[in-house]
Amino acid sequence: MTVYDVIEAKKCGKELTEAQINFFVRAVTDGTASDAQIAAFCMATLLKDMTQKECFLLTMAMADSGEKCVRPRSEGVFADKHSTGGVSDSTTLVIVPILASLGIRCAKYSGRGLGHTGGTLDKLESFPGFRVDLSPEEFESQVERVGAAVSGQTKNTVPADRRMYAVRDVTATIDSIPLIASSVMSKKLASFADIILLDVKYGDGAFMQTPQKAEQLAKWMVHIGNRAGRKTIAAVTDMEQPLGDSIGCNAEVREAIDVLKGKKNDLAELSLFHCQKILCAARGTTEEEAKALAEEAIRSGAALEKLAEMVYAQGGDARAIQDDSLLPLAPNRTVIRAEKSGTVRVFARPLGKACLELGGGRMKEGDSVDHTVAILLKKRTGDKVQKGDALAEIYYQRENEEACALVKQAFSIVDKLTARPLVYKFIEEDR
Amino acid sequence: MTVYDVIEAKKCGKELTEAQINFFVRAVTDGTASDAQIAAFCMATLLKDMTQKECFLLTMAMADSGEKCVRPRSEGVFADKHSTGGVSDSTTLVIVPILASLGIRCAKYSGRGLGHTGGTLDKLESFPGFRVDLSPEEFESQVERVGAAVSGQTKNTVPADRRMYAVRDVTATIDSIPLIASSVMSKKLASFADIILLDVKYGDGAFMQTPQKAEQLAKWMVHIGNRAGRKTIAAVTDMEQPLGDSIGCNAEVREAIDVLKGKKNDLAELSLFHCQKILCAARGTTEEEAKALAEEAIRSGAALEKLAEMVYAQGGDARAIQDDSLLPLAPNRTVIRAEKSGTVRVFARPLGKACLELGGGRMKEGDSVDHTVAILLKKRTGDKVQKGDALAEIYYQRENEEACALVKQAFSIVDKLTARPLVYKFIEEDR
Repeated sequence: MTVYDVIEAKKCGKELTEAQINFFVRAVTDGTASDAQIAAFCMATLLKDMTQKECFLLTMAMADSGEKCVRPRSEGVFADKHSTGGVSDSTTLVIVPILASLGIRCAKYSGRGLGHTGGTLDKLESFPGFRVDLSPEEFESQVERVGAAVSGQTKNTVPADRRMYAVRDVTATIDSIPLIASSVMSKKLASFADIILLDVKYGDGAFMQTPQKAEQLAKWMVHIGNRAGRKTIAAVTDMEQPLGDSIGCNAEVREAIDVLKGKKNDLAELSLFHCQKILCAARGTTEEEAKALAEEAIRSGAALEKLAEMVYAQGGDARAIQDDSLLPLAPNRTVIRAEKSGTVRVFARPLGKACLELGGGRMKEGDSVDHTVAILLKKRTGDKVQKGDALAEIYYQRENEEACALVKQAFSIVDKLTARPLVYKFIEEDR
Repeated sequence: MTVYDVIEAKKCGKELTEAQINFFVRAVTDGTASDAQIAAFCMATLLKDMTQKECFLLTMAMADSGEKCVRPRSEGVFADKHSTGGVSDSTTLVIVPILASLGIRCAKYSGRGLGHTGGTLDKLESFPGFRVDLSPEEFESQVERVGAAVSGQTKNTVPADRRMYAVRDVTATIDSIPLIASSVMSKKLASFADIILLDVKYGDGAFMQTPQKAEQLAKWMVHIGNRAGRKTIAAVTDMEQPLGDSIGCNAEVREAIDVLKGKKNDLAELSLFHCQKILCAARGTTEEEAKALAEEAIRSGAALEKLAEMVYAQGGDARAIQDDSLLPLAPNRTVIRAEKSGTVRVFARPLGKACLELGGGRMKEGDSVDHTVAILLKKRTGDKVQKGDALAEIYYQRENEEACALVKQAFSIVDKLTARPLVYKFIEEDR
């Protein structure tokens, strides 16, 4: 068997065998397969598709391609959560402290952002001194002590995905359901969570443009997780407008803290929804009990305390939780105002691009991110405005006309609007 | 515009614009596009196809990607001929001397073989001392003096094709009509022939398995050539069995010499057909006149003399034309015999593979080729045999069971046979 043969079979639309898939993933991992061959395989997969069985086998082979995370010795349930990505999605910063304060252990490996805005690791680094490079031993020990740790995966975790993703990123082969599903789930399965909650975004600011596509991806991932013996659940959620009201690392951390202090908005609502679903899955409690527990963790301050504990444990300055001058916004401000009266409709993608333009995201791996850049939404989809009302505030170090134009472009003033639910669908059982 | 955008457009099945195609080919040539991006583009093109217009634009951009051959100063018609490749196809060695002896100048750039058997350059190197690395000046001067030269293209000729072909070769993206057509025609258009004859093979020993596919490829290439202002004609010909009776460099050169001495077989018939068509196109003579001219070039010995002149001019030992001990076959011989009586059907592919197994072809660029390895066919498709009759002789340096098995496998003894014409179709006008 050769790598060529596997590409040829997929190109012809054949269902790959377990032997072919394992051979290919080994070749990706040990370097036998060239970047060109990986690209050809990915393009053939994107255009010819895979069966759920092939996708499961690909995921398992990828999950097995490197070092696996060691399960901490402690008793109890471990939960993990993954979002397919969008703008102003800081749910991890809210969910992890809530769940950990309720005794659900969160040992979460996250990534840096590529493109629009910073990723979870970038946001955590907004806490001065916060370390995201915990060794496996430090990580395990912190989960034991604190009940929560969020860190970056090492180079040796799922190396097959690392190579394939780098190739896909430059070859227009990202938007394939089997390739996305195997990439996400291989990393989840290389870790040890008992419960995996997937937040699959759709709409302007997401990879998936339609709820139908997002639902299909969610179902495939739920299938893979359960087939691999993990309790896997998924929510298909709206990403036409940003989830929170803040874009930019420091601003998003401020907002997550506000939510843990009781602020109500879409970020709070979706974070509570996720907590509730994980609690139901972990404890078998009713939806109402679960909701009450999560709300109480906020009301009592237990979740906020847990965040402080985690930040402190990872070397960060937890005073930022009470003193937002430690999470500064850039000194210059521009206000974008409504040019006519009507109902607002907000689109996430131009806002993400604006953040990138201002230096708040990274173009390519290794770029640094400006944590102080911010775009604060003053109006959200469905809000009524009068001409001249503030729609958004932009905080920047250096003036950038392109960014201002993008923020303007993100707001439509319309006459009528069809409401979009925040959670389109919840997927629990593998069908 | 980015390379990513061009891949994305082709992936979505869009017709690429001239600007997109030129941008992509420039990126391939100057190294901006990575191998992975080239592979993704080729796989997307293979699976989503191109229009004839896109293919023409791609060919022109590739032809313009490097140094172009300088047209010699002399008057007269220049002809070029290209075969898409098969087993025992030595027509170049026969056609070039015939045409040159009749005043049609042949300035032909050829390739080395990759896979099964040696290519034209390898065969020419069977003449001891023959040089295939003529400088552009040497090449031009020889065409002026002798009327014929066959040499390798330089690294700087069509560099875009060089990179794309190397990627396609390992990514299962060879068998795409627009990619084959642009690869072949870009090299032809980077040279200066007024008349281009294309021999598009189909069947077991060819890339194209069916005559319909071969015809489609031929039509596309004829369209490109004429659109670029060259008189381009094509023959779709049979490659189920080897064209000649000999496989292996020295053996094929011996056979080409025999044909120039008057031997009649399929190689002679097809070579004369090609000469006739080129003469008609160049001189406007009738088919009958053209045929008579080509036959007379053989009968008179003028063609054989021209071969000697060309071999001598390129530093080769022309005595090999009269003394075949200068074209030795390997010392060991095995005869493959019919295991039952009936009618023979021969398949080219296993014979090509057998030649490769014996060292008579190259696995990868840079491998050396054993010129003495040979397989001589004693029976051809349609011949009647009795059990025990010799089907083929294998000449080898080292015994190789796999090669013997492949040669056996190449012969079927059948009860009935549908005749296949040597020339399936001749394509003159772009439709």
